[in-house]
Amino acid sequence: MRQWGGRFAEKPHDTMLVFSESLSYDARLYDYDITGSQAHVRMLGKQGILSQHEVDTLTSGLEQVRASFARGEIPQDVTLEDIHTAVESSLRQIVGDLAGKVHTGRSRNDQVALDMHLWCRDAARELRAAVRDLQTQLVRQAEVHKDTVVPGYTHLQRAQPVLLAHHLLSHFFMLERDAARLKAVETSSGVSPLGAAALAGSTFPLDPAFTASLLGLAAVYDNSMDAVSDRDYLLELCFACSVIMAHLSRLAEEIILWTTPEFGFASLPDSLSTGSSIMPQKKNADAAELIRGRAGRVFGSLIGLLTVVKGLPMTYCRDLQEDKETAFGAFDITVGCVRMAALLAEGLRFNRAAMEEAAGDWLLMATDIADDLARRGIPFREAHGIVGALVRRCLEKGVRPADLSREELAEISEHLTPDALGLLDPRLSVRSRDYYMATGPRSVEAQLGRARSILEGEVLPR
Amino acid sequence: MRQWGGRFAEKPHDTMLVFSESLSYDARLYDYDITGSQAHVRMLGKQGILSQHEVDTLTSGLEQVRASFARGEIPQDVTLEDIHTAVESSLRQIVGDLAGKVHTGRSRNDQVALDMHLWCRDAARELRAAVRDLQTQLVRQAEVHKDTVVPGYTHLQRAQPVLLAHHLLSHFFMLERDAARLKAVETSSGVSPLGAAALAGSTFPLDPAFTASLLGLAAVYDNSMDAVSDRDYLLELCFACSVIMAHLSRLAEEIILWTTPEFGFASLPDSLSTGSSIMPQKKNADAAELIRGRAGRVFGSLIGLLTVVKGLPMTYCRDLQEDKETAFGAFDITVGCVRMAALLAEGLRFNRAAMEEAAGDWLLMATDIADDLARRGIPFREAHGIVGALVRRCLEKGVRPADLSREELAEISEHLTPDALGLLDPRLSVRSRDYYMATGPRSVEAQLGRARSILEGEVLPR
Amino acid sequence: MRQWGGRFAEKPHDTMLVFSESLSYDARLYDYDITGSQAHVRMLGKQGILSQHEVDTLTSGLEQVRASFARGEIPQDVTLEDIHTAVESSLRQIVGDLAGKVHTGRSRNDQVALDMHLWCRDAARELRAAVRDLQTQLVRQAEVHKDTVVPGYTHLQRAQPVLLAHHLLSHFFMLERDAARLKAVETSSGVSPLGAAALAGSTFPLDPAFTASLLGLAAVYDNSMDAVSDRDYLLELCFACSVIMAHLSRLAEEIILWTTPEFGFASLPDSLSTGSSIMPQKKNADAAELIRGRAGRVFGSLIGLLTVVKGLPMTYCRDLQEDKETAFGAFDITVGCVRMAALLAEGLRFNRAAMEEAAGDWLLMATDIADDLARRGIPFREAHGIVGALVRRCLEKGVRPADLSREELAEISEHLTPDALGLLDPRLSVRSRDYYMATGPRSVEAQLGRARSILEGEVLPR
Amino acid sequence: MRQWGGRFAEKPHDTMLVFSESLSYDARLYDYDITGSQAHVRMLGKQGILSQHEVDTLTSGLEQVRASFARGEIPQDVTLEDIHTAVESSLRQIVGDLAGKVHTGRSRNDQVALDMHLWCRDAARELRAAVRDLQTQLVRQAEVHKDTVVPGYTHLQRAQPVLLAHHLLSHFFMLERDAARLKAVETSSGVSPLGAAALAGSTFPLDPAFTASLLGLAAVYDNSMDAVSDRDYLLELCFACSVIMAHLSRLAEEIILWTTPEFGFASLPDSLSTGSSIMPQKKNADAAELIRGRAGRVFGSLIGLLTVVKGLPMTYCRDLQEDKETAFGAFDITVGCVRMAALLAEGLRFNRAAMEEAAGDWLLMATDIADDLARRGIPFREAHGIVGALVRRCLEKGVRPADLSREELAEISEHLTPDALGLLDPRLSVRSRDYYMATGPRSVEAQLGRARSILEGEVLPR
Repeated sequence: MRQWGGRFAEKPHDTMLVFSESLSYDARLYDYDITGSQAHVRMLGKQGILSQHEVDTLTSGLEQVRASFARGEIPQDVTLEDIHTAVESSLRQIVGDLAGKVHTGRSRNDQVALDMHLWCRDAARELRAAVRDLQTQLVRQAEVHKDTVVPGYTHLQRAQPVLLAHHLLSHFFMLERDAARLKAVETSSGVSPLGAAALAGSTFPLDPAFTASLLGLAAVYDNSMDAVSDRDYLLELCFACSVIMAHLSRLAEEIILWTTPEFGFASLPDSLSTGSSIMPQKKNADAAELIRGRAGRVFGSLIGLLTVVKGLPMTYCRDLQEDKETAFGAFDITVGCVRMAALLAEGLRFNRAAMEEAAGDWLLMATDIADDLARRGIPFREAHGIVGALVRRCLEKGVRPADLSREELAEISEHLTPDALGLLDPRLSVRSRDYYMATGPRSVEAQLGRARSILEGEVLPR
Repeated sequence: MRQWGGRFAEKPHDTMLVFSESLSYDARLYDYDITGSQAHVRMLGKQGILSQHEVDTLTSGLEQVRASFARGEIPQDVTLEDIHTAVESSLRQIVGDLAGKVHTGRSRNDQVALDMHLWCRDAARELRAAVRDLQTQLVRQAEVHKDTVVPGYTHLQRAQPVLLAHHLLSHFFMLERDAARLKAVETSSGVSPLGAAALAGSTFPLDPAFTASLLGLAAVYDNSMDAVSDRDYLLELCFACSVIMAHLSRLAEEIILWTTPEFGFASLPDSLSTGSSIMPQKKNADAAELIRGRAGRVFGSLIGLLTVVKGLPMTYCRDLQEDKETAFGAFDITVGCVRMAALLAEGLRFNRAAMEEAAGDWLLMATDIADDLARRGIPFREAHGIVGALVRRCLEKGVRPADLSREELAEISEHLTPDALGLLDPRLSVRSRDYYMATGPRSVEAQLGRARSILEGEVLPR
Repeated sequence: MRQWGGRFAEKPHDTMLVFSESLSYDARLYDYDITGSQAHVRMLGKQGILSQHEVDTLTSGLEQVRASFARGEIPQDVTLEDIHTAVESSLRQIVGDLAGKVHTGRSRNDQVALDMHLWCRDAARELRAAVRDLQTQLVRQAEVHKDTVVPGYTHLQRAQPVLLAHHLLSHFFMLERDAARLKAVETSSGVSPLGAAALAGSTFPLDPAFTASLLGLAAVYDNSMDAVSDRDYLLELCFACSVIMAHLSRLAEEIILWTTPEFGFASLPDSLSTGSSIMPQKKNADAAELIRGRAGRVFGSLIGLLTVVKGLPMTYCRDLQEDKETAFGAFDITVGCVRMAALLAEGLRFNRAAMEEAAGDWLLMATDIADDLARRGIPFREAHGIVGALVRRCLEKGVRPADLSREELAEISEHLTPDALGLLDPRLSVRSRDYYMATGPRSVEAQLGRARSILEGEVLPR
Repeated sequence: MRQWGGRFAEKPHDTMLVFSESLSYDARLYDYDITGSQAHVRMLGKQGILSQHEVDTLTSGLEQVRASFARGEIPQDVTLEDIHTAVESSLRQIVGDLAGKVHTGRSRNDQVALDMHLWCRDAARELRAAVRDLQTQLVRQAEVHKDTVVPGYTHLQRAQPVLLAHHLLSHFFMLERDAARLKAVETSSGVSPLGAAALAGSTFPLDPAFTASLLGLAAVYDNSMDAVSDRDYLLELCFACSVIMAHLSRLAEEIILWTTPEFGFASLPDSLSTGSSIMPQKKNADAAELIRGRAGRVFGSLIGLLTVVKGLPMTYCRDLQEDKETAFGAFDITVGCVRMAALLAEGLRFNRAAMEEAAGDWLLMATDIADDLARRGIPFREAHGIVGALVRRCLEKGVRPADLSREELAEISEHLTPDALGLLDPRLSVRSRDYYMATGPRSVEAQLGRARSILEGEVLPR
């Protein structure tokens, strides 16, 4: 029961049917499809194109189809081609030939586009909620570790001490940009293509704005040809997913590093770890590795969809059907990874002692000494050189600065006096960087306040 | 004159110098770098970290550097590593060791990040202006062709007649989303990382918000670790460029098709075409092909930068230096292509006669006949089947519907009467689809009005 | 029934189980897994690690598992994690605790790697056979159209006449490189990782070369750490698939163009075309469009897998699990598209009259006139300029060269005489380019001979 | 001095000239272009199309152009469009109008294709030599560390002890596949397209095989249309570069990890490290990070070129010009990274004491105990469980197995006796895995022998 065929002398080839069907993956759209059809039918009624009785019959028929599909009773017939035909076919069994009137003034082109817009809007919302959950777990951990000092790294080399809360909040604020992007995707997808019909609009006097308002969509496409060929909103979703995955992969990398014996900064609960089939001692952060690895696949979806769109003439070309598996895949992977990351963030147990020991490494305070020299009037570049020489001397001799005599210090630079070495305390170092944005305790408290407000919805995200 | 080295016993290896230098491509940032340093210095003065005299000397010294660099006198010394050191080195020649104080409370990490934010903001603006120019050319052509009827295509098969203005406006509204995305990039990049120093903030009492306000940046990063490792705004720029290129590649494809002898819908001026070294008759739409081809390279930039970021632990890792050539490349290609596309859009000469002849193909009006049957109460699916049978009969007999007798028509369906065939007029077809969004003349006039308003800035883009 | 857990105090979290399971997609490997286990067991027997009775029991037990899985009776239990555990679990139900001995001297790391090597080898073979079928269809069409003249295009502008057979054979020889790449993938994947165990080899005295020979694998990895972390062969498969898809997308583009009314060069049978839900006249080359679109998805797989591998430390990391859906997806899409393309190539009906009419366009012979002038001693560049002027004159006057008087010709150039215009015959043009590689009839005959030989396996592909 | 223009009434637009020129980046091809032209001219002479005097004049003229270009005297004139015209233009200044005869029977289409084939062949060779150098450094380090025991990792968790030489050789054999792929690219690019002319071959009686043999190219394209539109060999080069970069990124990741204080397994010489502009103590493995980061850009080149090719109709389309910057970029980055990696591999100083201490962790020998139990008849799965329980007990009590009493051991399993604990020696563990491929000393010696043979060219790479 295809939606076309009058002009065709042959039936579709079996291979062709299988090759072009989409029911196997677009069945998940049935709810949107039915909701869209009901809105379309109601609009047709308002415009006098269908009678009220037809509208009522079709609406309740569609509702029956929805109930049946929700029970999993979706026909698995490749000749149905797609979920749109599957819905209409099931509707026909309920209301008879009247089912054919649902398609008045509508083409599959705008119908499919509408379904995807509705799906994308929900996907963005769902993903945003998952991101919020992950952010919540990060804030919880940050609250617990407002006072824990850890080495901050650049180039994966110890750089300067930071509060663990500060480190965790860097992920929070990174994710906040993701939340904002998802909000933007929700807006982008909230535009109705219905009314575009095949590409040019319909000869029936439709009211696209009315249909849109019934569906809670804020706007209507300005141009019907654009409406049926636009896939920007899906590209935006795939991009938003890609950046989320890039962000999660960074957190995942850190979890993998922290839980090595070499770092020893954290451990995961057994319930979130896996073992080895051969090595009885192994406890691996597989979940973090899978998150990191899946980033690649989501990037692949984005580039895949961009490539699909490239070079297509207007308007709808069948290539665009490939948007579905691509966008579904990107979303499914990403939402799964965000949820897994939230579990990991919740489950991580930090080893405060190990972190603080590492943060006590005097080298982490080298900048503090240089800054101190600069405060005493030495141009920073020169101060940097003096402390560099101190570092070199200590490493060569295998000692700490406190082990050097006043004379040895003076040999490096006259400005280098033992009192400067009083700065070699990571907690002091952290406290000395305490304007908003920096790692000091008051800044971190303020960041936490802002984070909590964002989560409580009091502050509009940037 | 590196910005480090005190602790190092050896000089950098020559290969290492060449491998890691960025001066050859980041020299274009000098203006932003100097502006950023001036703002930083002014903030240091306000905070009492530098004296007013120091501030003044450094500011005017930096201004001298800017003037010299603007004249092209940028030192080409690989040991300078990057534009930041090149600026400081030149400043040192002017103000002596005082130059070292510019780096007080600042690291290259936040300095580079600031430069890229400022660059990205300008890049988004410049690109948006170029998009507006292209949109303007499309609107001009649409004004000229408000009354020209052309075949609308789906699957590159003739589908229904549309107004050429409608077709051109579909590109306009597509590009409008690009303009909106670029506006968003401008906002995203308008956040100041200065004050983050290496990663943890500075031990000097900085005022990041003040520096930001001097630079016209609306916000400051909430977290210093995020500030130095965030590349989202550049990813957003690369993504915006990628979608623009995808859109341009569609327009380019159409220009290539339209200018074939087979379509014959348009021609390009000789000044925008190229010939062949061997075939004297050739006149090719090379510019459109280059636009289409360059889309691939911009997609490559996006995936490249995503891959760079993937899996990096916090905070700054040198991998992130690869953001520059990637983002610069994506921007340069895209802005060049948008400008070329504007020239093409301006220069295209449409062959109205050829377009209208093609639009007169009766098959394009098949939907109108089916709609008419539907309006007479036949469920649309059945109507579709009837017209499909009519199409098949005509194609088999090699005739047009008007060539069929009343009896032959009735044989196909009793509902098919000769008066239905009065609908086989493309201009009538276009006029019958005239609610906003559709291809009818009033709708197109309204779209044009909206387009003009957008270009004049009267209407906020969605 | 996981393959690990002794050291774990908690069971896996439900979300973790779902997140990390692979049974839902690696079940397709069962046959390879069982074959691999049988070979491993037989090697263990030969080495005296298992008794002959154990070997026999395990071998026949595994055979029973195979039979049951072949009937579709694969356990659907997420706690089984993957197909390897599912096989072992089923084996345990048959042979009891002895099942545990299969894993002697083996880890899932080398077991999974082996399965994927075996799968990849078969995938490359299957795909190569499909490519051969497509090539066969192209040759068949070329045989039919050895004498049909069509316009050859550059820049999608008519360039010079070619034989349709020559055009079709260009696709044949393009695909021949794909066949060669697939052959190389078959070789690359024919290397056995079994014996690497987790990463370091086993404390049991294994004989990896023996296992490899049992499996028909020509070589063994030289290094166990490389063996468990190498994914090059899958990257090569994804790359081979990507290039195939790029090639198919070119053929698809041509089919789409040829079947437009504007070109009118060919049509597809109804059974390989689809219609529109709203436009009764439409007959679209959807299959070709889907092929072209799916190219993007396969490219995405390639970039996805490259990104997965990027930056992983040795040896096995769980990220590598993401190789499966990526490689399976690339293969499934590609083999489906190659088969569809073969159907399209078989079904295409060329419109010889339309092609030859287009090839008769005199502009296509412009090069022939220039060559003729060059043969008469005029440097080619000058000859090119003379014919270019002729083209311009004709286009401006709207005439053909034959319409110009001898005087008019001489005005353009003294070298331009009416007899040169005798060259304006497409068939003559084709015949004048007849060394091997060129489009002339003897060259095409020779190409066809070579193509047939390749298909018959007489000639080793390059 | 364009190579066309007779039919054009207008000059190219300035923007168009800049947009489409390639001289700025294809100038590097001049040597190949001249060599190709000389071969073409010689063939024209042999075929009697040019006189011997013409051949001689053109050949020596071209040689003069080569000398001048080699001195850097390449004209920088955008109207020259590309290097091919630049060469011809310079030739014209030397030999006058005769220069125009070089283009007899040749088009830029086959000329450009030839240049790229010759470049690609050399690029593959050069890259292969660089890979060989890197392999050599790895072998040297492996020779030094044949006896150094280090932890082998899976999931970045300590797994089993391995010899450092074994670990380093895993990179050697990984790179060996790259060398093989580059060899294949050399072969793929060794096919001559010259003779294809624009697309159909020439009306002059060319001898493409003769030209090919003069250029040392083993084969000629079978089909002229394929010859001018094939970019497979460049895709293969970009793919080979991508896999190399993926491999290097893995080595880079390890260098970054090894040189952290947390691992402390190795250090880099100061000459290959960089510091921080703000933190005097920093010594970063920037070179390794840049290698890892640049992987992303090379992947981007590959996907970029694939996307360029996608969907192009036959034959040459200008999109294909985008192959150059893409392939040049991929090659330049990759060869630079391979060389840098060789320096890193040479310069790495391993901290044997730290590595061996880490390898002494008893947990690394857990598999050995399980294997021992299996050898005593306990099914491996059960043995695995017993050792897992031992691990858990030790971790909970914070002790080592030797600290447990015989009773405590028996409590875990009756099979667990103190003598099993004699296996807790990493060197013993390594020695117990000593068949070829595994990590034992004799296997490593054999691997080294094979590696040396490969480097000395005695053994054909697989």
